[in-house]
Amino acid sequence: MNFLEERIVKDGVIKEGNVLKVDSFLNHQMDIELLDRIGAEFKARFASHPINKILTIEASGIGIACMVARHFNVPVVFAKKSKTINLDDDVYTAEVESFTHRCKNTVVVSKKFLSPDDHVLVIDDFLANGCALQGLLSILHAAGATVEGIGIVIEKGFQNGGRTIRNLGYHLESLAIIDKFNDDGTLTFREQ
Amino acid sequence: MNFLEERIVKDGVIKEGNVLKVDSFLNHQMDIELLDRIGAEFKARFASHPINKILTIEASGIGIACMVARHFNVPVVFAKKSKTINLDDDVYTAEVESFTHRCKNTVVVSKKFLSPDDHVLVIDDFLANGCALQGLLSILHAAGATVEGIGIVIEKGFQNGGRTIRNLGYHLESLAIIDKFNDDGTLTFREQ
Repeated sequence: MNFLEERIVKDGVIKEGNVLKVDSFLNHQMDIELLDRIGAEFKARFASHPINKILTIEASGIGIACMVARHFNVPVVFAKKSKTINLDDDVYTAEVESFTHRCKNTVVVSKKFLSPDDHVLVIDDFLANGCALQGLLSILHAAGATVEGIGIVIEKGFQNGGRTIRNLGYHLESLAIIDKFNDDGTLTFREQ
Repeated sequence: MNFLEERIVKDGVIKEGNVLKVDSFLNHQMDIELLDRIGAEFKARFASHPINKILTIEASGIGIACMVARHFNVPVVFAKKSKTINLDDDVYTAEVESFTHRCKNTVVVSKKFLSPDDHVLVIDDFLANGCALQGLLSILHAAGATVEGIGIVIEKGFQNGGRTIRNLGYHLESLAIIDKFNDDGTLTFREQ
């Protein structure tokens, strides 16, 4: 097990319906040392890519993305969730469905901050069905930016999101991939 | 002018109605080097306080709080905005009115992550009327935590939020305080 898998086993809480709560260290309370180590790991895995910007989505992706960005020495852009229909600025938009919250959000990024000159690493905390990630990728394609890679902290390997993204040829790195929530309350991680 | 005021003058965009847009470096695209310098400055200003946790509010506070937290070597907790009425967990809540978005939000923090043992630094990007900040303080009081200080990146000094908080005896540090949007499109910063 790597450092993240060990932490998930130690402090993650498994709930009914294949729900893993990591809110004590990743997405409500955030362990900054762990985030820093996650940043170093992504830097190692994407070292050969000419990344000049990191894109994430609010809210829980932002802290992770900032701590990763330190290791690449690049700025972070975060896509904003918007309920507003009249978007007064010049923005890229995508529709994103949230299964957790059972709602649709429009996510927006100002056109000022993404261009064909950008070589982008996408960062997010979770990947399951991949709706949020697909929204970010569609925004990057609309901007003409190059997707250098995708870094996910925890992937639910038994859902479709990761497989689809890999089939499309993207360089996707997930630091922990959960292949199964076992009946005895343990997790099976994919060997990487 | 300090480093932040200089950056505001260089890259901030002033809009009608005393609106300052800093989305190119602070709250949509984030300059990570600047955030790191902001973190170092808050560490210097709150050096004598025994801070063991940082509290902020989603979304734009999170990145700043994480970069500040590195300098204190403490975890970050962020208050979540919730539309949900049925909150299934044990949470502290506060009502927060947003003038920008003309809506009310309930903000919540899990009771697991704040206790009377905590000595907390509150971090946020903007302080104007202070509604969001008051919500965070009410949550900290409900938790019995000690408020060691409040660190704000940009304060609108001509609105009431900062004065009220200082009158209440809190140690509030704002890295830039705008006292006036001048008719010629310049800003007057408060001497500190």
